[in-house]
Amino acid sequence: MKQFINMFVLVLILSICNNYLYAQDVYGHLREGWLQKAQQTQPPLIETVKQPVTLVNMQKDTTAFQHWKAVNHLPVDSLYKRSFKSQSGVIADFGEHLTGYFTFSLAEAGSVPDAPVRIRFTFGEVPAELTTPFDPYPGALSRGWLQDEIVTVSDIPATITIPRRVAFRYVKMELVNSNVYPDFRISNISFTATTSVKAMPDTLTASAGKMIAAIDKAGLTTLKECMQTVYEDGPKRDRRLWIGDLYLESLANMYSFRNYDLTKHCLYLIAGLSYKDGVAASNIFERPTPHPQVNPLFDYALIYNVAVKEYVQATGDKQTATDLWPLIRRQLDIPKKYIQPDGMLDYERANKEWWLFFDWRSGLDKQAALQGVVIWAYKNTYELAKMIGKQNEVSDLPALINKLSSAAHKNLYDAATGVFISGKDKQVSYASQAWMVLSGVASKAEGAKALSKLAVMDNVVYPGAPYLYHYVIEAMITCGMNKEAKTLLVDYWGGMINKGADTFWEVYDPKDDFLSPYNFFPINSYCHAWSCTPVYFIRKYPQIFQGQ
Amino acid sequence: MKQFINMFVLVLILSICNNYLYAQDVYGHLREGWLQKAQQTQPPLIETVKQPVTLVNMQKDTTAFQHWKAVNHLPVDSLYKRSFKSQSGVIADFGEHLTGYFTFSLAEAGSVPDAPVRIRFTFGEVPAELTTPFDPYPGALSRGWLQDEIVTVSDIPATITIPRRVAFRYVKMELVNSNVYPDFRISNISFTATTSVKAMPDTLTASAGKMIAAIDKAGLTTLKECMQTVYEDGPKRDRRLWIGDLYLESLANMYSFRNYDLTKHCLYLIAGLSYKDGVAASNIFERPTPHPQVNPLFDYALIYNVAVKEYVQATGDKQTATDLWPLIRRQLDIPKKYIQPDGMLDYERANKEWWLFFDWRSGLDKQAALQGVVIWAYKNTYELAKMIGKQNEVSDLPALINKLSSAAHKNLYDAATGVFISGKDKQVSYASQAWMVLSGVASKAEGAKALSKLAVMDNVVYPGAPYLYHYVIEAMITCGMNKEAKTLLVDYWGGMINKGADTFWEVYDPKDDFLSPYNFFPINSYCHAWSCTPVYFIRKYPQIFQGQ
Repeated sequence: MKQFINMFVLVLILSICNNYLYAQDVYGHLREGWLQKAQQTQPPLIETVKQPVTLVNMQKDTTAFQHWKAVNHLPVDSLYKRSFKSQSGVIADFGEHLTGYFTFSLAEAGSVPDAPVRIRFTFGEVPAELTTPFDPYPGALSRGWLQDEIVTVSDIPATITIPRRVAFRYVKMELVNSNVYPDFRISNISFTATTSVKAMPDTLTASAGKMIAAIDKAGLTTLKECMQTVYEDGPKRDRRLWIGDLYLESLANMYSFRNYDLTKHCLYLIAGLSYKDGVAASNIFERPTPHPQVNPLFDYALIYNVAVKEYVQATGDKQTATDLWPLIRRQLDIPKKYIQPDGMLDYERANKEWWLFFDWRSGLDKQAALQGVVIWAYKNTYELAKMIGKQNEVSDLPALINKLSSAAHKNLYDAATGVFISGKDKQVSYASQAWMVLSGVASKAEGAKALSKLAVMDNVVYPGAPYLYHYVIEAMITCGMNKEAKTLLVDYWGGMINKGADTFWEVYDPKDDFLSPYNFFPINSYCHAWSCTPVYFIRKYPQIFQGQ
Repeated sequence: MKQFINMFVLVLILSICNNYLYAQDVYGHLREGWLQKAQQTQPPLIETVKQPVTLVNMQKDTTAFQHWKAVNHLPVDSLYKRSFKSQSGVIADFGEHLTGYFTFSLAEAGSVPDAPVRIRFTFGEVPAELTTPFDPYPGALSRGWLQDEIVTVSDIPATITIPRRVAFRYVKMELVNSNVYPDFRISNISFTATTSVKAMPDTLTASAGKMIAAIDKAGLTTLKECMQTVYEDGPKRDRRLWIGDLYLESLANMYSFRNYDLTKHCLYLIAGLSYKDGVAASNIFERPTPHPQVNPLFDYALIYNVAVKEYVQATGDKQTATDLWPLIRRQLDIPKKYIQPDGMLDYERANKEWWLFFDWRSGLDKQAALQGVVIWAYKNTYELAKMIGKQNEVSDLPALINKLSSAAHKNLYDAATGVFISGKDKQVSYASQAWMVLSGVASKAEGAKALSKLAVMDNVVYPGAPYLYHYVIEAMITCGMNKEAKTLLVDYWGGMINKGADTFWEVYDPKDDFLSPYNFFPINSYCHAWSCTPVYFIRKYPQIFQGQ
């Protein structure tokens, strides 16, 4: 079973960084303007009222994902017409993943109810969330993320909207009163779904094939559901704007919804809430008022620059990049103090002073990935600088890129085995190969050889979450490994499709349906931004991803 | 242990009466006018914002009521200043019984909370409600009456008012999340208390004595808390206007708050919502719109007339009685079809066709009480008729009263033992003696003898709830048993005071703190209208109730 970075490590990181906001405020004067622009570009949410499509039974089935599957049971009318007491525990299926606000109506069933009634609504993205007891709660994240709400209704008839926003497909309704009397009915349920997506993109051509089309569809739904007033990481959890998710979502958006306003809004929001030392905020809470989590993340800060570059390339909106340029330049500084005379970054020190992410995978050595992401970000930022006429301000970059790249090749490429190694223990991982390819340290041939070699080597560290799979597939395409890229995408995301996914999951291990970085699989997010990336691949490279 | 009428009997009665509303609508044209008057006289609620006075620990103590007592622990500020995680389970004491709406604020404690937090608030009128697990719920009434609310707060800071109205003195606050992170604070709690009482009455003179003053104070609080937009039976449960409670509350109000507008409003409301055959609605739900429970109750229908008479006598408002006269006349008809040629009511038939209440006491034979309440109501209604010049319309009453009284004395008075008996088994009960006295069937001397005899007889059926204690004490005073009346009042209500009551309880058995008609003592109402009656006695008869 895979191991993940424990959340307690994050607590530690948080406490290390606690004083971050109190550092010298270099970018204060700019931040205010960026935040204003973010406010001006807040996208409107589009609301759609949805009805349940059927009542379902959850059936135990060890061949189904997490051993439970939803089976059509009764039409929805049978919920509304019959007394609720006789149906307590009923599950309604809205037929698709939705994010927003749940409304229910209660009515008399014969005579006047004499007492408050209490109903527990449990919202689930996947069937097992409806069948797995939440308590006693063994998870590592807040129990509050689990979507069960007990509502007391003092008077019937009543129509009540649960104030909490939920993300779900299935809702279970249970009478908490053991013996309410007289009986009553749930006379209606509905859902006000929200997203900032305005229109669906063109469907794929028939040549894509069934599985590719299914993957694309689930990816689009995942992305649409995460596209609210920011690019959320997951509408169930954590509902936050993270740079890492933003980057993948904005790539997928480019080839699907083309809602560039949302990307622009998020880029300004992150800039406007950047830390006082000018490091781009790794993640943003929108509510109650927009604010950053004080949790600086090395690789995400650099990815911010690449996200801006991709946005400008897609839209031609140079004004935004020019506005944001001081922040972009600041991110370039982050790695500099770690560059040693030999051109290698001081990984030990960086790892001590920063949160380095790259993947949810405990034991992953990140030396190679760190070297790679810096080179890759420098290259992309230099391209961006050229687009907006700022290359003079970053004229040191080309030499730096060369220095870092040469050092990486010299120190990290193991010519004997043909793979890139990382750290003292010369660890071999997908992460290292991917970042050595994306940074251009590996030649196309070296990259292809290295990536191919992994499948037959022992002790290779595999990706832990879909986020890293994105970079691996991108690396494969970079090396011309189109067939392998397609196979990996179809195997991995198609695996979720075969297990009934209509949105893609935060974590997915083909061999372990119950895997959770948080020690309790129902708290996993089953509609997670960083898993939407097939939309980008399938629609950017239709010639690769077809016929399956 | 005492036995009570099972709620399932009520269900049966309800189903028998289910078609009641569909009988011929005789009073439709009048009902509309009465309802309009009720709407015009809706009393305003007075809101007062209250703060907690201290944090308490609940300590196990087998000498305390229900084995728990609240012990002052820490000042309230310590709740607000410290992280909540370290205080989960903390209990705040508002220092008095309050009814209304609870508001709390959450704030950061160091850094930004990353997840929704869930807090369970449990509101209790007495200490043991805060320490007794509610689940698995063994009670016979709806679990929904128990005042625990789990609130999910998605974003901090937040200020939230729980929508449900609660009645309580103590509130327990528990973190439902097992490991929320980062921590947060409850930065404020407050309570918007409501009542329609405008001003407190004069305090008692010093001659009343300490215990009488304490009983009076708790009675006033009980009454004030029940006086909302109607005379409620209990602000925690069932929050309904019942004729039986209205009658006792309006009596107590006459000698304390003198808020006659509320009495008038309730009299019109009951008339406006009387059943289609003109029987006064035994009880009214105010919400979502005012409506009666279809649950006709013989003795309550007759007590309605007496409540009107007392109101007119206290206020001189003959116009209201004249308005309501058609309904008052209609109640007189209810007993008529049960009057047999010998002047005895057909108890068996009435008991089959109606709910006869008189007391929560299973096994109580109600023949004598039934005969008594009819005579008593006829006498009071005839007095009322004379006040408003309607005696010609009820000219049959004096003869009926004589006939019923003679028959009662002949058939129910057991000269050998000197007590009144009831039913085939010649049951001897407090209820029977009280109603024979109040109806005037018993002479003053017979009544005094009978009531005195009970204490030394075997197999006497004692009162089950404070409601009947009222009629017993009233009967004692009627018979000149002032000393015994005072002793009973001080013993019974003083018993609650000695056990820490600051409001009087729905049920109280000096020998059993855990007694519940609903099989679970936390669901009992601990601020119950029909227990406020000492206010009436103490303030109406100050010469009797003093020096204790």
